[in-house]
Amino acid sequence: MYKVKAYLDSLPRDQAEKLWWEKLLAVDYFTNLPVEEVSISDALGRVTARCVYARQSVPHYNGAAMDGIAVRAQDTFGAGETTPKKLLVLKAGEPFVDAGCYIVDTGDLMPLGTNAVIMVEDVHLSYGYADIIAAAAPWQHVRVIGEDIVANEMVLAEHHVITPSDIAALLAAGLDSVEVVAKPKVTVIPTGSELVATHQELKPGAILDVNSHMLCAAVTNWGGEPTRHEIVYDDYQKIKTAIVDSLKVSDMVITNAGTSAGTEDFTADILSELGEVLVHGVAIKPGKPVVLAICQGKPVIGLPGYPVSAMLTADLFVRNVLHARQKLPQPEVKTVAATMSRQVYSHIGVEEYVRVSLGEVQGKFVAAPLGRGAGLISSLTKSQGMVVIKETNDGLAAGTVTEVKLFGRQQAGKTILSIGSHDLALEILGVFLGRQAGLSLSCANVGSMGGIMAIRNNEAHIAGIHLLDEKTGEYNVSYVNRYLKNNESWRVVHLAMRDQGLMVLAGNPKGIQGLGDLVRSDIEYVNRQRGAGTRMLLDYQLQKMNIESSKIVGYEKEVGTHMAVAATIAGGSADTGMGIRAAAKALGLDFIPVGQERYDLILNFAPEDERPALIIKILQSPEFQQQVEALGGYDLTDAGKLMALS
Amino acid sequence: MYKVKAYLDSLPRDQAEKLWWEKLLAVDYFTNLPVEEVSISDALGRVTARCVYARQSVPHYNGAAMDGIAVRAQDTFGAGETTPKKLLVLKAGEPFVDAGCYIVDTGDLMPLGTNAVIMVEDVHLSYGYADIIAAAAPWQHVRVIGEDIVANEMVLAEHHVITPSDIAALLAAGLDSVEVVAKPKVTVIPTGSELVATHQELKPGAILDVNSHMLCAAVTNWGGEPTRHEIVYDDYQKIKTAIVDSLKVSDMVITNAGTSAGTEDFTADILSELGEVLVHGVAIKPGKPVVLAICQGKPVIGLPGYPVSAMLTADLFVRNVLHARQKLPQPEVKTVAATMSRQVYSHIGVEEYVRVSLGEVQGKFVAAPLGRGAGLISSLTKSQGMVVIKETNDGLAAGTVTEVKLFGRQQAGKTILSIGSHDLALEILGVFLGRQAGLSLSCANVGSMGGIMAIRNNEAHIAGIHLLDEKTGEYNVSYVNRYLKNNESWRVVHLAMRDQGLMVLAGNPKGIQGLGDLVRSDIEYVNRQRGAGTRMLLDYQLQKMNIESSKIVGYEKEVGTHMAVAATIAGGSADTGMGIRAAAKALGLDFIPVGQERYDLILNFAPEDERPALIIKILQSPEFQQQVEALGGYDLTDAGKLMALS
Repeated sequence: MYKVKAYLDSLPRDQAEKLWWEKLLAVDYFTNLPVEEVSISDALGRVTARCVYARQSVPHYNGAAMDGIAVRAQDTFGAGETTPKKLLVLKAGEPFVDAGCYIVDTGDLMPLGTNAVIMVEDVHLSYGYADIIAAAAPWQHVRVIGEDIVANEMVLAEHHVITPSDIAALLAAGLDSVEVVAKPKVTVIPTGSELVATHQELKPGAILDVNSHMLCAAVTNWGGEPTRHEIVYDDYQKIKTAIVDSLKVSDMVITNAGTSAGTEDFTADILSELGEVLVHGVAIKPGKPVVLAICQGKPVIGLPGYPVSAMLTADLFVRNVLHARQKLPQPEVKTVAATMSRQVYSHIGVEEYVRVSLGEVQGKFVAAPLGRGAGLISSLTKSQGMVVIKETNDGLAAGTVTEVKLFGRQQAGKTILSIGSHDLALEILGVFLGRQAGLSLSCANVGSMGGIMAIRNNEAHIAGIHLLDEKTGEYNVSYVNRYLKNNESWRVVHLAMRDQGLMVLAGNPKGIQGLGDLVRSDIEYVNRQRGAGTRMLLDYQLQKMNIESSKIVGYEKEVGTHMAVAATIAGGSADTGMGIRAAAKALGLDFIPVGQERYDLILNFAPEDERPALIIKILQSPEFQQQVEALGGYDLTDAGKLMALS
Repeated sequence: MYKVKAYLDSLPRDQAEKLWWEKLLAVDYFTNLPVEEVSISDALGRVTARCVYARQSVPHYNGAAMDGIAVRAQDTFGAGETTPKKLLVLKAGEPFVDAGCYIVDTGDLMPLGTNAVIMVEDVHLSYGYADIIAAAAPWQHVRVIGEDIVANEMVLAEHHVITPSDIAALLAAGLDSVEVVAKPKVTVIPTGSELVATHQELKPGAILDVNSHMLCAAVTNWGGEPTRHEIVYDDYQKIKTAIVDSLKVSDMVITNAGTSAGTEDFTADILSELGEVLVHGVAIKPGKPVVLAICQGKPVIGLPGYPVSAMLTADLFVRNVLHARQKLPQPEVKTVAATMSRQVYSHIGVEEYVRVSLGEVQGKFVAAPLGRGAGLISSLTKSQGMVVIKETNDGLAAGTVTEVKLFGRQQAGKTILSIGSHDLALEILGVFLGRQAGLSLSCANVGSMGGIMAIRNNEAHIAGIHLLDEKTGEYNVSYVNRYLKNNESWRVVHLAMRDQGLMVLAGNPKGIQGLGDLVRSDIEYVNRQRGAGTRMLLDYQLQKMNIESSKIVGYEKEVGTHMAVAATIAGGSADTGMGIRAAAKALGLDFIPVGQERYDLILNFAPEDERPALIIKILQSPEFQQQVEALGGYDLTDAGKLMALS
């Protein structure tokens, strides 16, 4: 049980991919694919298994191509403005006579004897006759047999993705069904004794199985047909049985978790027994402990347990395989060149994937790195793209222009980038921006000073700040005037006055009265990071009260947002921490006020940009103000007021 | 019954769109949308109806972020390479003791008393003790409560398209279901007494209802939930009842056909009775007779009956409405600048949509216009994009660089553009190119001389030619040397010798013996277009035989391919026409040989391009040669042989 081992390998990504594809090709995974016959109306988006040939011509008869009259062209020769001709209108079914005609609609069979159509606009009907003032050329406005598609002609090539108009062509060409490449069947097996399937079973130490649902959704997106296996506990035999059973009914098997060097990680051993393990461990981050194997000629992939690792490695080693297995074109990855808003470090020898928020600020794209932990699902949901730091690189300096791979359909031009101090009101502002202008607000929480620096470098549109000037007792203005004096077209608008204080568990079990209690040895504090306005406020107050920070237990434990402080206290990892009343209220904590502070927004847009006006309008609207005040501890009396200007 | 009326309107497209969107906004079609609650695992691709907030923090407990040992950080202070520390390994469940530790896997609950994790790689286990050689900082490698998502935090904004990682985030944040915007329900009603639902019912004059299937597929592609109504015959009351019934259960109703000025076109009248008709007739081609109406606050759209018209007008007036109704971002339209390979005329006052084949030839994109008829489904299935000729323009000259809107996922860089004489062997070449190199072959059939001109202008990769030099009796080489003398890096390779002759109905009912019979007054001929090699061969033979072409009935009736000649004869619209044996064989016609001719390919690629070598390899392969010879009338003995070179 307590076996501890190292990774089998730490292969560079490109080598792992090469081994993987060479082996898949060697086992003929992309040829002689299973085929299924589907009715044409179910064929949308499917891939033709072979060339499809027409069973009949389209059109299958000579028909009128216009509404009008069907005539014999010879009868119309000589007709003109000054020499109109009269044709006898015959009833449908009546035999043709010289200088006769029939009224026809578009698509009607050309009556026997006729070989041209005159458009209704050029005909005058009266008393059973049709007057015409222009001659008709033979076969004019007639759709002749096979004009569109000729019987036995190829309608669709093999490995073609069927579109709505292809469906029309197939049906018109006489087909009722079409042979398409079968969707690859993929079984996803969640493994781990710590996993539970429902929120009801979720206890501390237990982990909800979210990855299998995420991976099944990804398989669906990539054209596969996923099956989610039930959770398998960490037991060699049980995992082996699950894989063997899944191989019988699947074209690919994915196991999730159980691939690192932990005590219960059997995947690689099991796959060695069942087939050939090609790769165990790739030099990427997140995602190192991936296992790539071939068992019974089918790929079996062990993905790491952290959700971000699982998703990124699936993207590297599953997506393209599924596309190739269906003969679907590999989707294009869109990229954009963007400036890094801050430095990121990386290890030489490891290719690292950094999720970023992306926005276009004053004419250039800016990428703001998000949290890098492999467990941070929110770093995927909140990001617009990803920066790849090559294994030969030890990081990217702030200001570096680098390539960002874009996720999905978000439009970087529609994203407002907010970098600075965190406040719950920003989320509400984002909702209003979305509703009123289709914009999305992307927030990186780096504290007030980080926000000012981002604005100074033109790397953010908005920065929330609450910085006390210890000399004047004033907030924010002296800071922006000092740091942004060389910048153009920024302005500071007021958002809210808000209550700052100490958060404690409901009922205040440790009887904390104020900042003076922080030095008690039975009290553990949770702090905000350096540069955060709340941290600066704490330090200012401690200094005034002559309290040494080294005496505070937990002073060095830093988290990044008010809500993280609240969550740490609610979870019992600390007794108290400073933050805003709204965060305490959100998590049911008690709140001991320390003071009120001013929270403003720096807006940084080009002079002609209309978005600052929209933001100010939202800040001043009663709907916005009511929603923010309902959070608790906010006073929005002067929201939207101009405080400073470049 | 025989009521003939003109279009209500012929509005410019932008005005029609403006009226349409203003009215849809006025009836609040895009607000207060119906919402449905779906389980998270069914939420992929759906759009959130409102902001989604976390019900629990993620993680929901303090857990190990690495495999290794959980320690109390204080116990490790002072540990180093030369001063290792020994910690007692406790069993899970045992109470913590000073200098104790627990073996933990990633994700395990941090045991009470511990506050840091040391990675397994940095630990040496022996005899119940763990040796460490570095101190641990408090909270190192610990995932603290709410590190990823804090309870009550916004997980997804409203009107967000749900991705696989969003599914993971929603589940982890404690949600089992999510409110999403309901998919718009769209009923498609096929109307027309000429329509039939199955191939079995298809008689001359009858039309298979293909459009309703195509439109339902398009609605699916655009995120809607389509229902196909059964076919409704041309009867005012029946169509009205179908629309009224459909409005009860749908968010949008589409009727198809019945919108032009034909004798049985009731749609506009019915919609005037049921609601407000905003537009009847738009100045576009194809697609003029479209009807846009609002009935009971819902859009009802009458689309024209020709498939190309129906598809293009649906794209203009349905697609964006469905996207907006779901709060889906409007999909980006990709465009590319391309050179027109030949002139197209258009009418001032009408915006025209020309489908094109698109390929990248010698470094520039070339657009080759396809058939423009509104009934030609194949012009959609064979095209890679579309050129819009503005209503202020009377056409585009050959060589004009213009914007091409790309359809779907075809990659222009993967398309080989063949412009020239048609041959069935080209289809087979296309299949081999697809299989061996993922390339697709796009053919525009303009005859041999058209092909040479396309190569001369660097507007095609390949041109099939069979041009007899009347002076030398030789084929092709004198023509290319004359017309391509200023071009670089082309070569001519031989494809096949093929039989040319007269095609006649099986059994040769009119007893045609040879070209001499063409002057018989009871025989109607079908000809190829000017510039086609077959046409030149005919004219050469007629001249030799001293036959005047004006004496041949049908000499002026031109079609564009061998297969079209065969289809015209098979359908009874002509008695005979000249073409290749393979075309006769494909449609079960008899064949009267006139002679053998040489069919070659001009290959026009940059010198470094590897595709000519691939094409020649295919031409020389036994698999290719066998498939072509099986068509009948081909001799591929010298296929792939170099005939001429730039």
